[in-house]
Amino acid sequence: MHPAIEYIEERRSAFVEELKGFLRIPSVSTKSEHKADMLKAAEWLVEQMRGMGLEHVGILPTAGHPVVYADWLHAAGKPTALVYGHYDVQPAEPLELWTTGPFDPAVRNGELYARGAVDDKGQVFMHLKALEAHLKTTGRLPVNVRLLIEGEEEIGSPNLDPFILQHKDTLRADVVVISDTAMIAKDAPGVTVGLRGLVYFQIDVEVAKSDLHSGGFGGAVENPAMALAQLLSKLKDRHGRITIPGFYDDVRKLPAEERRALARLPFSEKKFQKDLGAPALFGEKGFTTLERLWARPTLEVNGIYSGFIGEGAKTVLPCRAMAKISMRLVPNQDPTKIARLFVRHVKHIAPKTVRLKVTEVSGRGTPWLVPTDHPSLQAVARAIEKGFGKKPVYTRTGGTIPVVATLDRLLKAPILLMGIGLPDENAHAPNEKLDLDNLHHGMLSAAYLFEELAETGKGKA
Amino acid sequence: MHPAIEYIEERRSAFVEELKGFLRIPSVSTKSEHKADMLKAAEWLVEQMRGMGLEHVGILPTAGHPVVYADWLHAAGKPTALVYGHYDVQPAEPLELWTTGPFDPAVRNGELYARGAVDDKGQVFMHLKALEAHLKTTGRLPVNVRLLIEGEEEIGSPNLDPFILQHKDTLRADVVVISDTAMIAKDAPGVTVGLRGLVYFQIDVEVAKSDLHSGGFGGAVENPAMALAQLLSKLKDRHGRITIPGFYDDVRKLPAEERRALARLPFSEKKFQKDLGAPALFGEKGFTTLERLWARPTLEVNGIYSGFIGEGAKTVLPCRAMAKISMRLVPNQDPTKIARLFVRHVKHIAPKTVRLKVTEVSGRGTPWLVPTDHPSLQAVARAIEKGFGKKPVYTRTGGTIPVVATLDRLLKAPILLMGIGLPDENAHAPNEKLDLDNLHHGMLSAAYLFEELAETGKGKA
Repeated sequence: MHPAIEYIEERRSAFVEELKGFLRIPSVSTKSEHKADMLKAAEWLVEQMRGMGLEHVGILPTAGHPVVYADWLHAAGKPTALVYGHYDVQPAEPLELWTTGPFDPAVRNGELYARGAVDDKGQVFMHLKALEAHLKTTGRLPVNVRLLIEGEEEIGSPNLDPFILQHKDTLRADVVVISDTAMIAKDAPGVTVGLRGLVYFQIDVEVAKSDLHSGGFGGAVENPAMALAQLLSKLKDRHGRITIPGFYDDVRKLPAEERRALARLPFSEKKFQKDLGAPALFGEKGFTTLERLWARPTLEVNGIYSGFIGEGAKTVLPCRAMAKISMRLVPNQDPTKIARLFVRHVKHIAPKTVRLKVTEVSGRGTPWLVPTDHPSLQAVARAIEKGFGKKPVYTRTGGTIPVVATLDRLLKAPILLMGIGLPDENAHAPNEKLDLDNLHHGMLSAAYLFEELAETGKGKA
Repeated sequence: MHPAIEYIEERRSAFVEELKGFLRIPSVSTKSEHKADMLKAAEWLVEQMRGMGLEHVGILPTAGHPVVYADWLHAAGKPTALVYGHYDVQPAEPLELWTTGPFDPAVRNGELYARGAVDDKGQVFMHLKALEAHLKTTGRLPVNVRLLIEGEEEIGSPNLDPFILQHKDTLRADVVVISDTAMIAKDAPGVTVGLRGLVYFQIDVEVAKSDLHSGGFGGAVENPAMALAQLLSKLKDRHGRITIPGFYDDVRKLPAEERRALARLPFSEKKFQKDLGAPALFGEKGFTTLERLWARPTLEVNGIYSGFIGEGAKTVLPCRAMAKISMRLVPNQDPTKIARLFVRHVKHIAPKTVRLKVTEVSGRGTPWLVPTDHPSLQAVARAIEKGFGKKPVYTRTGGTIPVVATLDRLLKAPILLMGIGLPDENAHAPNEKLDLDNLHHGMLSAAYLFEELAETGKGKA
């Protein structure tokens, strides 16, 4: 057996105890009262990194919580992997819903319960121990490695862009490895190869300078909520298809082979609907649920407001109405082009009876997709197959992971999303947990991954 | 000159001072801290009524604020008029917007500024002084008169129905006189002969048991705000026409003569639009603004809500959406029938992807219209012509006055709405005021009205 693998196998339960130490630190980035805990978590990482022989270990300041950095760069001629993760966690409230304390880690039925268990301390720990296994058994790593563990992911990484720009040379890499996502189901380890992009707008319509009495004025002036409803109803039809001219022009057609692969994934539409408590599933005609979520764009109303929304009745004719509307994009849609098409269409269909304002209220996200035949994708696939003893599946997620977009844009290296979470592990919710089998097999996979990446050759990862 | 008329002419400015005393009492019915002031206002009325020789003067209890009652029933063989008004007022807030204190009455440019000046203390006072003029000069009244001045109009008259039912015999009348409305413009005194009816609903749609992430789930489940928008857009078309099957079946066609009369009224669409600050006027095709407001039904969205409505962006796929929808009805629409048609249509057009709930959230109001050739209408027209020196106009209002519906239903007597307010007198708003010319001419008209009603004969008013 490979000495690094043996090292991990021998310490399986010891590692769980070690991880508990990391999880006990309440490093909640959004609360200022946890500022000292944030530093404590960073120092915990530093101690681990120094202990295994990583170099240039340090806590680097940002305008907010600091970044923990370390590297090992002695694999001459081999590619460099940048491992990204985060040591901050979501707040634990509501506390009364936790079976055991959020910062008092406990194992039940092979699962480790604590805030941060899966998101993302457990997955950061997995990479640390994989690196330690190599360093402690062979004194070296198969590839060059940099670690970038930030402390502000749960608050939207406000200082990551400037940090990366400032340290661009230090962070150069041939491949980025991130473990902060979930598998589609237990026993179905895999790689996330696609994310949707995003544009987000607010539409405001105004029909008068102040609210009116619906008796005294109703019927003689435009109703802004009705005008807005009529406008929204012209953005998507009853077959779930977006009706903005040109919207689908650049959508990459899903190859028959990919459709077959999606259909083979362990995903039950029936269970999905039941878990949601939905009276029916609904989406674009001609596509399965996974296709709709991962490979098809969508337009969603995120919020709408006008007039009186309290209990009972108020006879008001509101003077304005507002809606928030976002679109999730897929390759090869261009957020800039879609934003332009949206604004043009809304202006075109808005009636003359309203004053219209269309505002973009969030940064744009570009859709992201890694080709599965890319050498580094093949490397991670082999690593997962060895670590889990199962052929990996390729999944996508319908969301947008801002950090991926940031790293993609600034580092221009392929990104491997090897997540070992499960969909029901309560990230961001009470009773967050981590499956300890997945932690162990993920750790083995990570150890294999550094070896497999060495095979891809520098600059080709 | 008629002695009652002379009496009023001589006391024109003294009456303004007297009215100020009534206006100084902050009888705000909705605030419990004004409970003593409510009683003080009632007692002010009692003193006036006793002073002029009215009988059975009393403060009669209800479950809420009391009713002030008085009568004079010695006009044998003559009809009985019931004068309804209210002594409670709206709250005065926001106080900083008042030029002079709301309960510190002040005259500027021939207008009396105070909370309650026009709504409704000034108009109640107008009738009191007209009665006093008759009683003090001739010792009698031309008709039998009952006065019913309630203290809960501004909070929706919650105890008026049971009060009237309890005192049905005491309140018997041949005609009801109410002065609590406005003329269409200064120098255009008139009678309000029509009100619209009302039905009011709330629609709730639900697509899942809790809010979802718009990235992770968008495109694969119904969006409740979009489903609701599409549903609402099927209730009214872009020509302002309500699309509920059968909705217009019973709408009384507007006779050509009435349309001509409406067109002659001193009403400027241009000014109406400008005052509203509206980019355009909008309503049912083929009708003027006054026709749309007074003689045509309407369907209005009074409120709509779903998801995130704060500043910025939140990528939520809401699990539910809600809208408040009311319909104003005209003769001969039946609220019960319209409510049934609405519920049936909404259920018919709602998609299977939502759980739908349709709730009626307010009492129904029946549309009301008095024929202008009715003897009591002719009597009030003659009285106004004498009091104001101008031919009166017949107007309607697009709103619903609940008290009119209540009195119509419980007393089954014709109702005369002789209001002397003006559209810009800020009822319910800061700087409420009353035109003192209108007060004077209204008082003369009221004095004439009791004589004119005497001519209509008992039971025929």
